[in-house]
This record gives sequence, structure tokens and C-alpha cells, in this order.
Amino acid sequence: MTKPLSIGIAGLGTVGAGVLRLLHDNAALIAARAGVPLNVTAVSARDRSRDRGISLDGLRWHDNPDSLAHDPAVDVVIELIGGAEGPARTLVEAALRAGKSVITANKALIAHHGNHLATLAETHQAAFRFESAVAGGIPIIKALREGLAANRIDAVAGIFNGTCNYILSRMRAEKLDFATVLADAQAQGYAEADPSFDIDGVDTAHKLAILAALAFGRPVDFASIHVEGIRRVSALDIAFADELGYRIKLLGIARATDAGIETRVHPAMVPLSAPLAHVDGVNNAVVINGDPVGEVVLQGRGAGAGPTASAVIADLIDLARNRTTPMLGVAQADLAALPSMPMDQHRGAYFLRLMVQDQPGVIADITAVLRDHTISLESMLQHGRSANQAVPVVLVTHITNEHAMRAALARLETLAAVLESPTAIRIESA
Amino acid sequence: MTKPLSIGIAGLGTVGAGVLRLLHDNAALIAARAGVPLNVTAVSARDRSRDRGISLDGLRWHDNPDSLAHDPAVDVVIELIGGAEGPARTLVEAALRAGKSVITANKALIAHHGNHLATLAETHQAAFRFESAVAGGIPIIKALREGLAANRIDAVAGIFNGTCNYILSRMRAEKLDFATVLADAQAQGYAEADPSFDIDGVDTAHKLAILAALAFGRPVDFASIHVEGIRRVSALDIAFADELGYRIKLLGIARATDAGIETRVHPAMVPLSAPLAHVDGVNNAVVINGDPVGEVVLQGRGAGAGPTASAVIADLIDLARNRTTPMLGVAQADLAALPSMPMDQHRGAYFLRLMVQDQPGVIADITAVLRDHTISLESMLQHGRSANQAVPVVLVTHITNEHAMRAALARLETLAAVLESPTAIRIESA
Repeated sequence: MTKPLSIGIAGLGTVGAGVLRLLHDNAALIAARAGVPLNVTAVSARDRSRDRGISLDGLRWHDNPDSLAHDPAVDVVIELIGGAEGPARTLVEAALRAGKSVITANKALIAHHGNHLATLAETHQAAFRFESAVAGGIPIIKALREGLAANRIDAVAGIFNGTCNYILSRMRAEKLDFATVLADAQAQGYAEADPSFDIDGVDTAHKLAILAALAFGRPVDFASIHVEGIRRVSALDIAFADELGYRIKLLGIARATDAGIETRVHPAMVPLSAPLAHVDGVNNAVVINGDPVGEVVLQGRGAGAGPTASAVIADLIDLARNRTTPMLGVAQADLAALPSMPMDQHRGAYFLRLMVQDQPGVIADITAVLRDHTISLESMLQHGRSANQAVPVVLVTHITNEHAMRAALARLETLAAVLESPTAIRIESA
Repeated sequence: MTKPLSIGIAGLGTVGAGVLRLLHDNAALIAARAGVPLNVTAVSARDRSRDRGISLDGLRWHDNPDSLAHDPAVDVVIELIGGAEGPARTLVEAALRAGKSVITANKALIAHHGNHLATLAETHQAAFRFESAVAGGIPIIKALREGLAANRIDAVAGIFNGTCNYILSRMRAEKLDFATVLADAQAQGYAEADPSFDIDGVDTAHKLAILAALAFGRPVDFASIHVEGIRRVSALDIAFADELGYRIKLLGIARATDAGIETRVHPAMVPLSAPLAHVDGVNNAVVINGDPVGEVVLQGRGAGAGPTASAVIADLIDLARNRTTPMLGVAQADLAALPSMPMDQHRGAYFLRLMVQDQPGVIADITAVLRDHTISLESMLQHGRSANQAVPVVLVTHITNEHAMRAALARLETLAAVLESPTAIRIESA
């Protein structure tokens, strides 16, 4: 049993206020599970006067978040400011240097500076925890770092961005195009005014960088992730996916291959037999493949004040119980320098959609290009005819490699009868 | 960082051999995650000469498992003998009394003696761990005890017995009756020669007793669980379930209600919209509802040497890292004496199937009985007619209470036109 934990919180937005509220609402239960009282003693936020629906009476207020790191009455700093640079980074580094434990929900910070922070934490014997940084209330960090720690992890794949999953789910359910659903999601507050972080896949990539480091026991490597977002996903492709027995999902995938670790974020065709096909709306889900555990799936709400606060306080309870672990599951010295596989070495099946002029010889020309790049076809789909009009032709390939596919796509685009850039969506059985 | 852990294993059946094999196969990775080497130094099993496919060279052999508890070169005892009484219980109690940490996969032992063992562990400051006792490789114990520790848990429901789920899945897929599938499952080794432990729901109840204690922070209470197995599930009811948009699953359910904690194991109609409806074959899955996290679902393989060894060694790694916790998540003194709700106070919807003589007035008689017990109907299903022959009539009720339903069933059975005991299957939206 340790002494009561004194907590300083930086950032009192939705999540910060949610953490304060949950510590209050479930106080007795949390104290019993933590073994000691968890006392918030200090806070820092931009606007002191804003009504957050919770009392801040009796809490020391720091105008500068940085000074939480030097408050002698703070044992644990919870950083909920956000952003890979600026005050969040300054605070976290200062706190670790002062030997204080840090809990953060800041995926961008870890994706960009995780290795440096892990070294700082190890050097100063401070705990660094981030359960809330990935998949909200789903205890995926703990599952990978502890619950499945006996396994060699082969792959981690998941739906990590609720905004994208909400948009794709609604596009399918209501047969709407991307721009319409995005505008509506923004109006309803499901998407940010500047949505690029979510819809261009950056947020998913931040989370994937963290999971890949934990899963494979190697340094965080954000830069080598191949990232595509969902802007180009069309209602037409979603309709074809339905017809072929797939759902289009924005996935983050990390997989151990003979050529290195491949990490990629992109829209994918997921067969209905796979668990991720059935994860709709703002939910998140993760599929882990480990040896010897096999496939483990975790699913739940990936964002929001409640689920995020649940994860932040789970980290707090671990610290109160002295349940500590190196930040990435193993000591820095034990991380492996596993190579990253370049994306053009990816192997997989592809869904291709071409808009072609409906005229004799088009299919022969297209299939000749694929043959020339040793890409073989599993199936082809063409609806109706409409001579000399633009019609979609859909092709599903067998397993091939990305390099060949890129070359074939470049070649296909030059065919006179191919009227717009071909769409290629990778097929994932995860 | 602690010193190397010395491990004694009692029981070298499928799981014990699996633990030894996994410690060998993933040795480097496990040592890095544990922070120290994990050394098996002693074993105990019945048959010294049996070939287990792994070398036992250099391991001290104890003919009496009990003596592992007194081996000064053993820090942690792994009990894989099984059974609520006899050598497993003797060993675990002796080890805890000697202040040694214990890891076990023995759900029966915990269901029957968990409170005594938790007290022993607390008194002697020994860790007592049992991740492998519930849902095999799914890290559900850790998720409830740690990952979701900030939440007030409202309900835990799941599929915890692979044998039952395999039988029900095959009955549905191949339209076979229970006895046929059971016999085939026994021939193939998916079911025991004496299958009663699995198919009568006892194994599921053992696991539910453990999860309910953890979820609600109260003592283990196996005796108050209402338990029904799957022997009476018929191919006919499975076909009706399909028609109505349900799957029949053997569920273990623990729920906080105003009248106390209800814990029950029985076949249930699960709507296709619920995650548990899609868990087939030998898989296990757990749905947790917590405040504020919402619904979290975990799914994976619930049995077998690999998944079970994965869970046993996750516990070992926790001990090596000094990540400890009271056995039930909170100190014995902090457990709450929450009352158990008697089953006849259960409230829910029901699927009823009656075999009736097809004659005028039957439906009027049946619905009059239900009305007399204030049970209202959501829908009724009757196929074809066949005058004066036995035909099935299916009724789906609105939410009612078990007490009224039992009284109505007793009354329905006395109707002259009702030809056999009515079948009632509870509907669960979990």
C-alpha cells in the first residue's frame, strides 16, 4: 500500500472535465480499487473562469502548465492539452525529468516523440502511461503490454478513428457521398471544422505507431507508416463492396512479414466474415493475432469524455497500486531494431474500379495490362451495357504485390478507353 | 527489477505441457517483457515416464504436488491439476500459507473456495492469479480488475464454454439434434466422455462466479447462481430462433439490479444485432457494460493449450514485474456484501414454444393464461394447420417477471390441448 496519490491535471476540456467528474462520481469504488485515495490537488488550463460543470474549489491553479511539473505537491501529472509540440511536450518532458509519473491521452506526442519520452521516463524512473491515447475506453494498451505479453504478435489491425467509421457507416447506410456526410457530421459535431487530421488518416496513424511499437517491441516509428485517408472513397465503391460481400473501413494495420514490419493506414475492403466488418458508427475495434493465443478481438467506444476518462483513471489506479512497466513493455535496451517494410513491397489482393468507355476491346486491353504485370484476377464485375458511355468495371485480383499494382495502375490510366484515374482499394481479411 | 523467478508447476497435462513449451519457444521475448528470466525449477505430475514432447531434464520432480509449496527454490507455484478439492486445493492453500505466489487455471477451486483463498493470500501477502481460469486467452480478468477499474460495472455477459457453443453452432448449421451433435463432439474430442460439467452449465457458472465477484467487488458466490444447461435445446427451437432473428447461446450473465446482483447461466435467445450472436464454434466472448465506458466486447479462443498457456504466463510476467493486486481487485475488507437477487425476481422477455393439439379455442386458452398472469405478448408464430395434430405455437412476450412466467408455465402445462411441457427460453439483448 502506498500513500495517497496527488494528481495535477493540465487541460480541462471535455476529457479533463470528464476525468474530474469520474474521480468524483465513482470516488469510493476507485479508492478501493486503487488501494489509496486519488486526490487532484492542482490544475492548469487556459480559461480560469469557464464553467466546466464541476467545482475547482480547493485546487491550486497553475497558469503555466509547465509549473505542474515543479509543484512539489503533485506526484502524477495528467496531460490532456494535446498536440505533438508546444505546452504539452514541454510539460511532459519537464515532469518526467522531475521524476514525476505522467499519464497522457496525447497520441500525436507519443507518435512523434515516444522514443525520447521512453528514454526520459526510464532515465528518471518515472512511469509514462497512455491507455487513453488509443481506442478510448478499450483497454488495448494493457492487453498488448500485459495481457498478451507471452505471445509473439503477428499482426494488429483495427478501426481507430470514430469520425471516419461514422462517415463510412453513414455513406453506406444512407447511400450518400463523402462530401454530404462530412458536412453533416461537421454540423452535428461528429467531425471537426478542420477534419483533415481524422479523414486523412493521420490520427489513425498516430495510434498505429503506438500499437506497432508495443506489439513488436521496437521503437515508435511514425515516419514509416503508409497513410491514406477516406476522401476518395465513393458511394459507388461502397455499393460495389456491398455487392461483393465487403465493407469499406479505414484500417490501421501492423504486420510482421519476412521483409520487415509493415505499417499502413488506408481504406480497405473487409469481408463480412471478418469481425471488423461489423464495427459501425463511432465504435473502435482491434484484432490482435498472436502466437499461441490466436485471434483476440476487442471492441468498444473509441472516444468521448466517459471512455477516455475511464482509460486515464485505469492508468492512475495502476500507478496507485505500483503496477509499473517500461513505457513500451520492455526496457529501452531490449527494443529490437526490426526493419520497416516499404509499402511497395506489400502483398495483398486488390479491388479495382475503372470508369471505361463501353466499346469493343476495352476489357481485353485492361486484362492485358494486368497480365503484363503478372496480376491475376479472381473476379470481374460489369453491369449492363451502354455503348460509348462511361461504365464502371470492377476487378478483384488474387494476391499480388503493391509494386506491380502501382505499375499496372499507371499503365491503365494511359489507356484511351479509361476515362478517369482508376480506384484501387486493398482487400484485408483481418 | 526483481531477481529471476523460480517456478514450480503442478500438473503436466495439456495445459502444463503447453506452459513449458511456451516458456521455451518465446523465451527471449518473455524474458524482455518480464524484465527477469522465468525459470521453471520443479514440477509435479502423476506419471513421470509419459512423453510430453518437452524435456524435463534438470527439473526437480516432486511426487507429491503439496511438496512444491515447501520447496525453498520455488517462488511461484502454478497449479494446473484441477478440481475444487483434493491435491489442487491442498497445494494452493499450502503455497499461499508459505507466502508463495500462486497462479492457477482452476475455476472450480475459485468458485468454491475463492473467498477463503483470497483471505489466505491477503494474510500471507502472496499473490493469487487466475487469468487462465476464465475465457482462456482473452485477458478478461485483467480487463475487469485493471483496465476498466474506474467503472461502475452494470453487467457482464458472455459465452464461456466452448463445448456448448460448438454444439449449439453445429446444431444450427447442420440442423441436427442435440444428442447427435454431442455424440459426434465426443467422438472428435470436443466434448468429454462425461460432458455434464460443460453441457449442464456448471463450468460456465464457475467462470461467472469469478467474474461477478470481480465486476461488483463482492465475495465469490457460486451458490446463488441460477444454472440451466443446454440438454433441452431442440433443433426446432433453433429453427424458430433463426426465423425470429435470434441465435440460441449458453450465456453466463451477471447484472446489477435494484433488487440485488442477479447471476444466471442458461440458454438464451440473442438478437442478431448483439455481438454475442455472432460468436460461433469454440470461441468465447464477453460483453461488459460499465459506467462511463459503455459497452466493451472481448472475443477470442476460450480453451486449448496455447491460449491457456498465454494467460498463465501473462500472470507470471505480472508477478515478475511486481504488478500485484488483491485477488478480487480490492482488499477483502473493501468487498461489498451486495445481496443476490433470487431468480424468480428476474425480469425479461421470453420465447415460449408449446406443442398443441390443433383445434378451435387453443390459442384463446393459452393467451387467457398469459393474461391472467399479466404477461403481454409481442408476437406469435404458428405455421400451417393440421387439424387435431400436434403443432408448435411460438409466443414472444414483452418484459415480464420470472415468477409470473413460472406460474403461467405451470398453468399452461395443465391445459388439455397442450401436449408436452412448454419450452421457455429467456431473451437477452446482451
